[in-house]
Amino acid sequence: MRIIVDGMGGDNAPVEIVKGAIDALNEYDIDLIIVGKEDLINKELEKYQYPKEKVEVLNADDVITNEDDPALAIRRKKNSSMVVGLKALSEEKGDAFVSAGSTGALLAGGLFIVKRIKGIDRAALSSVYPTTNGLSLLVDAGANTDSKAEYLQQFGIMGSIYMEKVMGIQNPKVGLANVGTEEGKGNGLTKAAYDLLKNSNINFIGNIEGRTMPLGEADVIVADGFVGNMILKVTEGVAISLFSELKKVFYENTKTKIGASMLKPGLKELKRKTDYTEYGGAPLLGTKKPIIKAHGSSNSYAYKNAINQAISFINNDVIKTIEDNINK
Amino acid sequence: MRIIVDGMGGDNAPVEIVKGAIDALNEYDIDLIIVGKEDLINKELEKYQYPKEKVEVLNADDVITNEDDPALAIRRKKNSSMVVGLKALSEEKGDAFVSAGSTGALLAGGLFIVKRIKGIDRAALSSVYPTTNGLSLLVDAGANTDSKAEYLQQFGIMGSIYMEKVMGIQNPKVGLANVGTEEGKGNGLTKAAYDLLKNSNINFIGNIEGRTMPLGEADVIVADGFVGNMILKVTEGVAISLFSELKKVFYENTKTKIGASMLKPGLKELKRKTDYTEYGGAPLLGTKKPIIKAHGSSNSYAYKNAINQAISFINNDVIKTIEDNINK
Repeated sequence: MRIIVDGMGGDNAPVEIVKGAIDALNEYDIDLIIVGKEDLINKELEKYQYPKEKVEVLNADDVITNEDDPALAIRRKKNSSMVVGLKALSEEKGDAFVSAGSTGALLAGGLFIVKRIKGIDRAALSSVYPTTNGLSLLVDAGANTDSKAEYLQQFGIMGSIYMEKVMGIQNPKVGLANVGTEEGKGNGLTKAAYDLLKNSNINFIGNIEGRTMPLGEADVIVADGFVGNMILKVTEGVAISLFSELKKVFYENTKTKIGASMLKPGLKELKRKTDYTEYGGAPLLGTKKPIIKAHGSSNSYAYKNAINQAISFINNDVIKTIEDNINK
Repeated sequence: MRIIVDGMGGDNAPVEIVKGAIDALNEYDIDLIIVGKEDLINKELEKYQYPKEKVEVLNADDVITNEDDPALAIRRKKNSSMVVGLKALSEEKGDAFVSAGSTGALLAGGLFIVKRIKGIDRAALSSVYPTTNGLSLLVDAGANTDSKAEYLQQFGIMGSIYMEKVMGIQNPKVGLANVGTEEGKGNGLTKAAYDLLKNSNINFIGNIEGRTMPLGEADVIVADGFVGNMILKVTEGVAISLFSELKKVFYENTKTKIGASMLKPGLKELKRKTDYTEYGGAPLLGTKKPIIKAHGSSNSYAYKNAINQAISFINNDVIKTIEDNINK
């Protein structure tokens, strides 16, 4: 199995990306293609011990940044690490592509270069959603901001397959993000999607409200990309603002500072748990080949985890399973 | 000025409602009509000292509960405190109606009985949105789950008027809830609404993302009712789950318990600040007469605040200002 690594994508590229990739190489039974500026990548590689024959460096002089317009960048930056990497994937030089680069560009590139699975109407971004009960998967996290009910049905099916095959959750509970729990609640889109999801071959548990999402009621949260992105960012915003307010409470006076110091380990752990950037990556769902988006701020550990997800994605035949379920 | 009080609505009715109403009567220069089961209301009233000539009890034997279908209940429970109260408002027996009862029924009743301001396409639920920077107003918080751009424009105008006139914020900043900050981001609805809001006579600051909403970037957050309700409930869910996780950290061992006890006052205050149920009420925006929704769990203090909001709503000619701004 050969994993294609976007050596230039993400805030900490290439240093942490190359380190994470080599850590993965030494831990798992894989080969690597690392795409990026050859001299930079090779300079990083020199730092490590690893079986040289298992790593190929594929030169790409350009980089797509978060400031680039995603679709334009994919079309114009032909020699960017992302485009070169996705082409290599599409030409079957490797089995999966992992990138911590621009989410929008990765999605655009996935659609233009790798293309959708036959029968899939729209590819979706998924995102890990940390809950008090572990992790949920939110699909769509922002790719399709004007969805149809049929897309949401497919998001539910794909999310369920991913959580079962890759995350090892038996019979994953699929919930539809909605403004009320009863059937018949919501807007036109969710009412129609409810009917389709109910009649799909998944463990559909019905509507799920924002109030209970952070409790991990569903393993897969299905939403239109606009709503999904809003859920994700509000969750992030509330957590950030609460932790910053907590900090003020802690630093108020000597007594509170002492109190806070006694709670430090637990608080640190809690902050880590609520930070979804801690969790490796999340897949694009619906493309013909496995594409994993690692978080932009990934360190080597997170990046290694993202590669591990790619391995699991391949080993468990996720794409074949999606094809079979969508086209039956 | 005469305030009509739904004596039976809310979790703590009639005890806390009547107490809050009498507290308001003794603090502000108002008269009251309290609607509800006469014997129950009178029994509560007997507990207090107040100028008897300023309070009228209007009998209503029935109550609309949260379990009732809102629109059906308004049509069928003709003798409920909410329907009787709204009728009294519509017949100008009082100047505003305040209820802690079912939000959906209050909205339905507002539309059926009190009716919309001429020129207003849809009435909206607003909700207080607590931020680290004070309070924002979220419009629509759930009344219209399939909005058009024109509705969102009107929500922005009405929210701006309310925040300026009632909450005393000069030139309120109006933001459009969206999945990106740049113009042109979002779905079809928000793109179209952006253009309309930009060309409205309000202080439109553009798109606002979920990540910055809790920081109080905008005084008014404009959203479709589906999205607004999702924002509100996700915010609530994340806050609840984080506080519950914090509790676990605090109770882990003797040391953490001591540490937590040293932080108690600050934490309590923080929890209070983040709980939107603490803030009196929020108006229905777009009905012909002032209707204030007090939170279902209102205690007497919150209910008194909701009455104070009604007073301010009346004194500042909010409805006339909305009429003038919509129809010019």
